Amino acid sequence: MANHLKGIMAQDEKKRTLLSDLGEFGLIRRIAAPVKLKNESTLKGIGDDCAVLHYPGKRIVVTTDLLTEGVHFNLVYVPLKHLGYKAVTVNVSDICAMNAIPRQITVSLAISSKFSLESIDELFAGIHLACEHYGVDLVGGDTTSSLTGLTLSITAIGEADEKELVYRSGAQPTDLLCVTGDLGGAFLGLQLLERENELFRQNPAIQPKLEGYDYILRRQLKPEARTDMRQIFSDLGIHPTAMIDISDGLSSEILHLCEESAVGCRLYEERLQFDRQCVAMAEEIHINPLVAALNGGEDYELLFTVPVTEHDLVRNHPDITVIGHMTNQSAGACLVTRGGMQEIPLEAQGWNLLKK
Amino acid sequence: MANHLKGIMAQDEKKRTLLSDLGEFGLIRRIAAPVKLKNESTLKGIGDDCAVLHYPGKRIVVTTDLLTEGVHFNLVYVPLKHLGYKAVTVNVSDICAMNAIPRQITVSLAISSKFSLESIDELFAGIHLACEHYGVDLVGGDTTSSLTGLTLSITAIGEADEKELVYRSGAQPTDLLCVTGDLGGAFLGLQLLERENELFRQNPAIQPKLEGYDYILRRQLKPEARTDMRQIFSDLGIHPTAMIDISDGLSSEILHLCEESAVGCRLYEERLQFDRQCVAMAEEIHINPLVAALNGGEDYELLFTVPVTEHDLVRNHPDITVIGHMTNQSAGACLVTRGGMQEIPLEAQGWNLLKK
Repeated sequence: MANHLKGIMAQDEKKRTLLSDLGEFGLIRRIAAPVKLKNESTLKGIGDDCAVLHYPGKRIVVTTDLLTEGVHFNLVYVPLKHLGYKAVTVNVSDICAMNAIPRQITVSLAISSKFSLESIDELFAGIHLACEHYGVDLVGGDTTSSLTGLTLSITAIGEADEKELVYRSGAQPTDLLCVTGDLGGAFLGLQLLERENELFRQNPAIQPKLEGYDYILRRQLKPEARTDMRQIFSDLGIHPTAMIDISDGLSSEILHLCEESAVGCRLYEERLQFDRQCVAMAEEIHINPLVAALNGGEDYELLFTVPVTEHDLVRNHPDITVIGHMTNQSAGACLVTRGGMQEIPLEAQGWNLLKK
Repeated sequence: MANHLKGIMAQDEKKRTLLSDLGEFGLIRRIAAPVKLKNESTLKGIGDDCAVLHYPGKRIVVTTDLLTEGVHFNLVYVPLKHLGYKAVTVNVSDICAMNAIPRQITVSLAISSKFSLESIDELFAGIHLACEHYGVDLVGGDTTSSLTGLTLSITAIGEADEKELVYRSGAQPTDLLCVTGDLGGAFLGLQLLERENELFRQNPAIQPKLEGYDYILRRQLKPEARTDMRQIFSDLGIHPTAMIDISDGLSSEILHLCEESAVGCRLYEERLQFDRQCVAMAEEIHINPLVAALNGGEDYELLFTVPVTEHDLVRNHPDITVIGHMTNQSAGACLVTRGGMQEIPLEAQGWNLLKK
């Protein structure tokens, strides 16, 4: 990945075909051509006024996310293929947070004239790759022009049996608070990219130094949704009482769970695990990796609660870490620092873009 | 409407509360507060990772549209409330084109810091009004910032029984080609707004002259989706063989029907009806109203085909005009001018934004 990114920063695209040579309908045909519908629930994909779906006996879940250039991504160091993949991941992650199976997406994009056909091909290469990886059908969308930059809006649809669904609202006091994977990597990867981009901007002769940080770069540029957890929960014989995905930082997501479930929470600092690249990068930029986990966002791991009676079922699973427990609502939501030294109220400082 | 628009062009907003004072989560709460879920199929709306829907025994239809400032709308003369309403209409119209019933929408928007809380309230006032009018539930979305302008992405979901659905692909040679309402108004309303806006820009002391053009202004600024046609078809005892909504101009939509159904078409100029305001405005700007109908777009009427044996059922209905008939594919798609003088091949010159 590091070498690929050096290429992105160091050179322009080679071939540029104007989108205007193809037109909107031509572009739609080009986008639709590689689509092979995979799911029984997809009766009709691209090509009519609507897609047509069929979900006998199932609950249907729907989520949507909108990404804008300059706010959610910087095309100087985010390859378009990665952007396409990540945009799908972000939505699939929301489906996973309901304990549902992703099945369809629609993709709308607005593009300015600065984008060539080759660049749109790259974007959709990433989208198609993600559809393949997650077993999702691309069933529709909208393609239009914008005055500036790229905007990407994806809606994802999934299915689950009623009894399988997990909401944010089911956590009980004493439930264990658990998280998948490790946190902070996506934020620290972004800090690395922004630092190297700034140095490159000041002096294009300097090659970005990205070696040794493949993991956090991947966490930022090609995050994966936890589609595996549904099976893991099933294998373990547990059914989370509440769940949410971590897109805005751990603090913010814990507060959502607490609010929707009307409970409090104690999060233990010493329970949080960090990848060694996170620790190293955090040290380089003089922050505590805890801050990256709490407020960084974009990790797309799952945060969930299980009854305390199921502790033995989750405690030793390599994909799950117990990081705290829920309490009565009156106790609030707080972080207990190492050794129980302090209790600090959690605050949502995450991906609150409008607050800037 | 004319007076309201004068106000829009002539004055700035009075009160401006910064979105940053509210933050993203505050804004989402504000958007969600007035929502009252109406449909049985909506089990869970805004407030979790996904909305949850349930459609026992039904087909589900999904459509999405993305509108960008400066391309699809000009906020100098499009009131935000109208924009919100129209953005919903555009999607509901696609649901109508499948002969389905609209049930849910998600709304994503990206807004730059130039927008105040009051302006977002206006936008959502229009969205909520449309939800009320069309019986649709707002079940989710995404709210984020953009570097420039406003982008609005809506996904709509609807339902139908399998046997009720109408695709673009079912038209047969000899089928009658029918249209609802009248065409060209939305395009001519836009020409009027752009002309008056240009005059106002050159001299802000000049008040825009919009009197006598209420109908075409409404067609442009507050179009309605033909949710009534489903019942009308049912009452008439007809089931269209193919259908599409007219968003990109009649030419383009006819070509879509022909391509998907593998048929040709003869469209008769003398069959097209125009509102007198369309005729008057077309005369003012020295174009044939036919051009506005063929290439203007945004009329959101329905274009459909029925077997020729059902001519008596549709010929006298006030909402339906028979404008031509389908042919073998080899005959192509053409316009037959008044009196059968000429046959001109139809071309898609519609809403092909990328071609500009």
